Amino acid sequence: MTDVRIGPALVVPVDAPPFTGYVEVTGGAISHLGEAPTAAAAAETVGATGRIVVPGFVNTHCHTSQQLGRGLGDDVDLLTWLHERIWPYELALTEADAELSALVCAIEQIRNGTTLIADPGGRHVDGMARGIAAAGIRALLGRSSMDSGDGRPKGDRESTAEVLAAQDDLAARWHGNGRLRFSYTLRTIFNCSDDLITATVERARALGSVVQMHVAEIPEENAHTVATRGATTVRHLARLGALGPDLLAVHAVWLDDDEIELLASSGCPVSHNAASNYKILGSPRIADMLDAGVLVGLGTDGAPSNNRMSMIDEMWLAAIAQKGLRRDPTVLPAAAVLRMATLDGARALGMAGLVGSLALGKRADLVLLDPFTANFATAADPVSALVTALKSENVESVMCDGEWLMRDRRLTRIDEGAVLAEAAARAAAVRRRAGMT
Amino acid sequence: MTDVRIGPALVVPVDAPPFTGYVEVTGGAISHLGEAPTAAAAAETVGATGRIVVPGFVNTHCHTSQQLGRGLGDDVDLLTWLHERIWPYELALTEADAELSALVCAIEQIRNGTTLIADPGGRHVDGMARGIAAAGIRALLGRSSMDSGDGRPKGDRESTAEVLAAQDDLAARWHGNGRLRFSYTLRTIFNCSDDLITATVERARALGSVVQMHVAEIPEENAHTVATRGATTVRHLARLGALGPDLLAVHAVWLDDDEIELLASSGCPVSHNAASNYKILGSPRIADMLDAGVLVGLGTDGAPSNNRMSMIDEMWLAAIAQKGLRRDPTVLPAAAVLRMATLDGARALGMAGLVGSLALGKRADLVLLDPFTANFATAADPVSALVTALKSENVESVMCDGEWLMRDRRLTRIDEGAVLAEAAARAAAVRRRAGMT
Repeated sequence: MTDVRIGPALVVPVDAPPFTGYVEVTGGAISHLGEAPTAAAAAETVGATGRIVVPGFVNTHCHTSQQLGRGLGDDVDLLTWLHERIWPYELALTEADAELSALVCAIEQIRNGTTLIADPGGRHVDGMARGIAAAGIRALLGRSSMDSGDGRPKGDRESTAEVLAAQDDLAARWHGNGRLRFSYTLRTIFNCSDDLITATVERARALGSVVQMHVAEIPEENAHTVATRGATTVRHLARLGALGPDLLAVHAVWLDDDEIELLASSGCPVSHNAASNYKILGSPRIADMLDAGVLVGLGTDGAPSNNRMSMIDEMWLAAIAQKGLRRDPTVLPAAAVLRMATLDGARALGMAGLVGSLALGKRADLVLLDPFTANFATAADPVSALVTALKSENVESVMCDGEWLMRDRRLTRIDEGAVLAEAAARAAAVRRRAGMT
Repeated sequence: MTDVRIGPALVVPVDAPPFTGYVEVTGGAISHLGEAPTAAAAAETVGATGRIVVPGFVNTHCHTSQQLGRGLGDDVDLLTWLHERIWPYELALTEADAELSALVCAIEQIRNGTTLIADPGGRHVDGMARGIAAAGIRALLGRSSMDSGDGRPKGDRESTAEVLAAQDDLAARWHGNGRLRFSYTLRTIFNCSDDLITATVERARALGSVVQMHVAEIPEENAHTVATRGATTVRHLARLGALGPDLLAVHAVWLDDDEIELLASSGCPVSHNAASNYKILGSPRIADMLDAGVLVGLGTDGAPSNNRMSMIDEMWLAAIAQKGLRRDPTVLPAAAVLRMATLDGARALGMAGLVGSLALGKRADLVLLDPFTANFATAADPVSALVTALKSENVESVMCDGEWLMRDRRLTRIDEGAVLAEAAARAAAVRRRAGMT
């Protein structure tokens, strides 16, 4: 007995060649892939002629708690953005706000075909976890972790031991809870001691999870790390033994050749957040990283950094911008970018055994795309067009863990209109409390 | 008697402050703008609570005849793109193909809120004109004009006199025909003699229209112009007396400070095509041009150069990319980008007296946006979000010249499904005839 039979459709497994045929799902896992269906009866049959089936996108950096802050960071410099907008916003956020913020963020992820996010965390992780769980997507949770350094907002100061204990507590509660996993985090090296870095990496390894850390975001960060610890951030992390496949280096905008080589040789993955980078931080050398063999996933960052929280837009932007920066239209070809947005993202999060491609036995996280729109219907190569021409309106149905979260553009679990209305009102209330009106 | 009363909505006129109120349309023109409606009876009343009304976007560079070639230019270098993809495609295109190509391009423009395009032209202008006219949008037509130079495809070689006569003929037929106007064009300086340039500018001025010309696309173009005429393209055009408000410099990617100053001082407008530029040509200095006082509009270019033919995506990309290039998040602020995509675009095409903003007496080209989606509903500032967060799914209804071309996401004139199906089949047939399968 098959639970769901989808096809015939153009199936793009990502780790195998595209084919026209069927995907079958049983017990939440992919039970069959092939040009012909199995002979088993199916509880649900999804006729998908002309549709495209892809793995759910993997968003390797998604601040769900910032979703109610969309627009707070428009057209301002980085310090204004952080000190006058993001920190006041975060401090004004209640646990209930964080839950709603995560829920409405997850809705946007679903509408853009994303089924797995890595959330680097805010202050109310339990709320965030509940919001994400309500939407049904898969997530690697985190807690924003800082134990030192100047500039931390009042009310957000903890010792190294407190930071670690709070994370241990969250790991016990959420790691392996439904579709959620826990990831230890380090906010930035400005606000993390060497003791915290070392202990965090140890704990993540013991848990079998990864560490999320913002790395080399601005030139001033490297200057600070050189001044306080004698080397740039990436070099210092390497000396601490922190660089490796279980540390996700988020952003990695300001790197020299040797630092790129350090990432490559240590197997340390990068989360590239194109829109957020160009908007606020600078232009990372992603094409050079790929040439050097660095594993790169894609991410949206948070709503005030990237007002479009869409992996589909990130694919388009990442490819186009790197072509321009290198003045070489052949870098970041579509197949590589699609892989970055799916399988490589899952590898970067240590979850490629579970999801990231359409493969027998993996969990059934997949997206049905309707290419029959003015932006896509005439495309010469539908697989290439997944990166170059796809838009969120092509996302028709989304499945996570074998469960439909969206069918024919309707969310199955959520009264979307009611949630959006409440979120708009709550976002305005948070802005008022934070003094940003 | 008012024909259409829209409101109450958030009205963003672009050349005046946003307000909550009404837009009224009579005889195809904007007859009232205000917080309260007029007392006149209205033939049609559009309740628009919570909606946003903006001027229709102005796409200053839109190759409608390339629409069936979407995807032909993915991930290849410029010479492969031009010689092995675009020219064979264009030569394989029949007049009927060009008409369908223009129609399906116009559909995508409508779905993205664009009501005026400047089409730099292909080989079958009559077909293109019929396709655009069928969709109902406003357009500045052109004919791809070349009288000299190497590399022109066979079947596309004409003398200077032939090129001019063909354009005179088209101007007589289409300039002022319904919502269409005619614009003399020059493809690039590689393929245009000085005689053609001078005569073209003269004729455009006599017609009261503008010239569209691709300018400074690649460094090799400047090198070629220096070698053959003794100065870079912009300098040479200035010497010929061709630079001015009636020449639209398309792309303008490779300019030095003096050339930017020449554009500014002559009043020569630029059409910035962000996606196409970064994908194929390089990174133009748009922030520097704006600082120098150059008038800049936005454009999509053609489907093989920018697989998303959307002014909404161009706004987002233009702003983000220039912030990254200058490493300054304050350049290209949202209000300026919105103006580039509307009023400044209309000024660049010499049509700001007619359209480009919501102003009393201008033709009623406008868009109703539904912001009640996950990507927009929580935005702190809805006007800023028009650039930073807007997506095509927010485009609900589109009016051109007082006529609804789309109402509640349904095209009023066109059986969209039938057109898309035919276009997909026809695009495949063109690729086969051009030997690109």
